[in-house]
Amino acid sequence: MKLLEERIRRDGKVRAGGILKVDSFLNHQMDIALFEAMADEWRRLFEGERVTRVLTIEASGIGIASIVAQKFGCPALFAKKTETVNIAGDVLSTTVHSYTHGRDYNVFVSREFLKPGDRVLIVDDFLANGAALEGLIRIVELAGAEVVGAAIAIEKAFQPGGDTIRKSGVRVESLARIRSMDDGGHIEFC
Amino acid sequence: MKLLEERIRRDGKVRAGGILKVDSFLNHQMDIALFEAMADEWRRLFEGERVTRVLTIEASGIGIASIVAQKFGCPALFAKKTETVNIAGDVLSTTVHSYTHGRDYNVFVSREFLKPGDRVLIVDDFLANGAALEGLIRIVELAGAEVVGAAIAIEKAFQPGGDTIRKSGVRVESLARIRSMDDGGHIEFC
Repeated sequence: MKLLEERIRRDGKVRAGGILKVDSFLNHQMDIALFEAMADEWRRLFEGERVTRVLTIEASGIGIASIVAQKFGCPALFAKKTETVNIAGDVLSTTVHSYTHGRDYNVFVSREFLKPGDRVLIVDDFLANGAALEGLIRIVELAGAEVVGAAIAIEKAFQPGGDTIRKSGVRVESLARIRSMDDGGHIEFC
Repeated sequence: MKLLEERIRRDGKVRAGGILKVDSFLNHQMDIALFEAMADEWRRLFEGERVTRVLTIEASGIGIASIVAQKFGCPALFAKKTETVNIAGDVLSTTVHSYTHGRDYNVFVSREFLKPGDRVLIVDDFLANGAALEGLIRIVELAGAEVVGAAIAIEKAFQPGGDTIRKSGVRVESLARIRSMDDGGHIEFC
């Protein structure tokens, strides 16, 4: 999606260690008009898929998921993160490894909000190693619901998550796919 | 706001210890159509206030803040929580006590996204003791920006936060103000 790629080129900042900082428009300050354009594009891509739930993970996916759910006319749901295993009530949970923080954390969703028959569009701001997305896919499978696909803002295509998940049969629609970045700030899109 | 009060009566669950569970529509699963109605009401209440930023705190305020920012035609910004004091870059930060978790945590916002001259509407799902809201107000003051007011979904009016903050001169617009709740599930609104 040209609009997002141009925005990344203009306002994104490449940091050492393969970090792309997009906190001026995506995951700290949020440009809602941009989110609307992105959601319109996913609406076009997933047209006819009868999405019943938009699922994301706290915290930075929530804003995008809210606007996507608005466009699809369905509720949004965000998986919660916790470091404790014991959670009150009947929940779907899985463990996700954070490469950023170098530790595992639990992710959970209340079972009452994801049911067999639900058609779930998973939304997130980034896809790199794919650990978070794989965790969300497992949650949907535990619910007996169906993953319609993954709507990703920025995919680091030089990391393995996107390819692995596509090979597993899940449709992944990333609006900006980064082929390479260097510390000089140069970003090349696929 | 009748619509929100009715929804709380219908789908809210009172738990021991003054806990009101609204995770089916407000802070886990999110009813975006309801958020739009709430945002329209705040738009009416803060008409003419020339809001330039909507500020909230992760995680459960982000969905509401995104829809509010959409209606006001400005960016949303969410304060991040961390337990570490050292944060990279030039940030505005303060310490907030969590009564729920019985500990202090740091809250921060990048200084580049809140400037003198900004007119900030603070958004959150709950107001009880007021610690989070007071923290966000301090952040706006540290930036030299102005707090236009606080847009709160549910205020526990039997806890002191709302009164204290109103007395300090900040306009607080809570769409549902709970006077009392009992463990039998009865909720009385102001």
